[in-house]
Amino acid sequence: MRLSSLGEFGLIELLSRDLVDSRPEVIKGIGDDAAVLQVGQDKWLLFTADMLVEGVHFSFAYATPEQVGLKAVVASVSDIAAMGGWPMHALISLGVPLHIPVEALEGIYAGVRRAAREYGVDIVGGDTVKSPERLVVNVALLGEVEAGRAIYRSGARPGDLLFVTGTLGNAAAGLYLCAHPEVPVCPETRDFLRRAHLEPRARVGAGRVLAKTGKVTALDDISDGLASELHEICRASGVGCRISKPALPVDFRMKKAAEMAGRDPLDWILYGGEDFELVFTAPRDSAPLIQKEMAAHNEECYLIGEILPAEDGLSMVLGGNEVIPLPRGGYDHFKD
Amino acid sequence: MRLSSLGEFGLIELLSRDLVDSRPEVIKGIGDDAAVLQVGQDKWLLFTADMLVEGVHFSFAYATPEQVGLKAVVASVSDIAAMGGWPMHALISLGVPLHIPVEALEGIYAGVRRAAREYGVDIVGGDTVKSPERLVVNVALLGEVEAGRAIYRSGARPGDLLFVTGTLGNAAAGLYLCAHPEVPVCPETRDFLRRAHLEPRARVGAGRVLAKTGKVTALDDISDGLASELHEICRASGVGCRISKPALPVDFRMKKAAEMAGRDPLDWILYGGEDFELVFTAPRDSAPLIQKEMAAHNEECYLIGEILPAEDGLSMVLGGNEVIPLPRGGYDHFKD
Repeated sequence: MRLSSLGEFGLIELLSRDLVDSRPEVIKGIGDDAAVLQVGQDKWLLFTADMLVEGVHFSFAYATPEQVGLKAVVASVSDIAAMGGWPMHALISLGVPLHIPVEALEGIYAGVRRAAREYGVDIVGGDTVKSPERLVVNVALLGEVEAGRAIYRSGARPGDLLFVTGTLGNAAAGLYLCAHPEVPVCPETRDFLRRAHLEPRARVGAGRVLAKTGKVTALDDISDGLASELHEICRASGVGCRISKPALPVDFRMKKAAEMAGRDPLDWILYGGEDFELVFTAPRDSAPLIQKEMAAHNEECYLIGEILPAEDGLSMVLGGNEVIPLPRGGYDHFKD
Repeated sequence: MRLSSLGEFGLIELLSRDLVDSRPEVIKGIGDDAAVLQVGQDKWLLFTADMLVEGVHFSFAYATPEQVGLKAVVASVSDIAAMGGWPMHALISLGVPLHIPVEALEGIYAGVRRAAREYGVDIVGGDTVKSPERLVVNVALLGEVEAGRAIYRSGARPGDLLFVTGTLGNAAAGLYLCAHPEVPVCPETRDFLRRAHLEPRARVGAGRVLAKTGKVTALDDISDGLASELHEICRASGVGCRISKPALPVDFRMKKAAEMAGRDPLDWILYGGEDFELVFTAPRDSAPLIQKEMAAHNEECYLIGEILPAEDGLSMVLGGNEVIPLPRGGYDHFKD
């Protein structure tokens, strides 16, 4: 079916068909100028937005429309996880090229719904407009967290320990394999790493466990690469840090793919981005409690380093106790 | 200054420079993964998003960057006004072509800030990404209204009267004059109409007066043209309506421009869109109270017709009591 034969209102009706408001506080969802939500006194509201542009953040050469829709929601959900909260209500703004088949838009919304179901999010509205060349998806998301329990990037203190919630570099390896199908890895490894890139997960559960401990001093999600997020935490907290290369958790399949591709896995680990794991800090004496709580909830938790005074900067210890600086590096959209 | 010399983080810092969180419930604004807001028990939250795409919703051939930023915010604020609420917190997502000079982005944010100041909105975050060909602006906006006082499109009942809050067709006339500078109208008229298109106002004050009366049965803002919004109200409410052509409020400058351009002003009035006036319905016996309250607050209020049973459809009475159907018409992005 061609979009032009469906029309704007037909499209909106089609896209909103399976979207059901199920949360009790949704007084009014899709179908009016704005959604109406009732929020309690003892909660803080969390509100975030992510925009994804075709050819910049995703490519239909690698990703199915469903994967694009899913990832757009996950990217915003991950921001809520990175505050220690839970996601609740999303608005989906879609800029749509006329040449896109309606089936692809249905696929995008199938992915949106899949993510919405998985994370308990209600899609309560949005906007759909024409975008001549490229698909643009903006997800605006509201979440909640118990009053006083939101975890910022700015609370890390010298002496705190530094943790991550899972293996790093898988998404970057997956992106590389999407672009280089000739790299000879086994199908299981290829599939695992491509999925890490195309169907990432947001660590809402881990963020909730961390928030409930009340001990975490800084928290961020790894959307732009570990090095970039560490720079964010250190900048916001006015501290430095040192991580240990041997302590960085990696999946053997990521290492294998790097080896077969002739790439340095450390590049993917530090600068790859889109792993959507959480990185966090906590005082040294809270570490046992945090590790116990994470284990009790089947959440991964790896100690990777410690927070230092600002004047020590950001650095990494290699295997032989050699210390090297840790530049921000990573990808910058707006640099040449 | 070229964007490439500034870099992503420099750009974000630049753009967020003058954005100050001033509302007391902003626990955390720009600078973290999500904004944290504290919302009271007796309020309902309003949440809306609008996406504007260069060359579709605006053109730098007519609009200054400041006007683009202003209008992006006003479009979302108008959605909150159309619920009877007040706007509070916005996230600005920007898809930015590399060729855009930094000064233009500063201009956009100057417009965003101007609108934010005018409507009491805090910009609490957003996203900035690369968009190769066109500037894309998405504004996600949270507002509030007293619990139980949100006004939907769906409450119009047969016998209700139909009103608008100001003159119609000015924005469409202004857009026409932008594209046809050869139309010989006087500078004051040209300026007035161009401004109606480029620097529209959202009727938050009027919406608040209407919400406080507790008598309004349906409310919508006129973003896609009066005919289109009437169809929305009638569809959502399960009713029909009849409007009176002589009763439609028009500005003499709009009529003059139509005359000089050889256009039918009724096209601009019914199908022009972006006037951002409000259209609303109320029971006949509440009309005096509503008109009194609107006048007391210096808000315009014009009776233009009445609500009928659904089977009567949508129609318009011409001067000589001839009745013609009122098709939805208007612009549809996705139709050929």
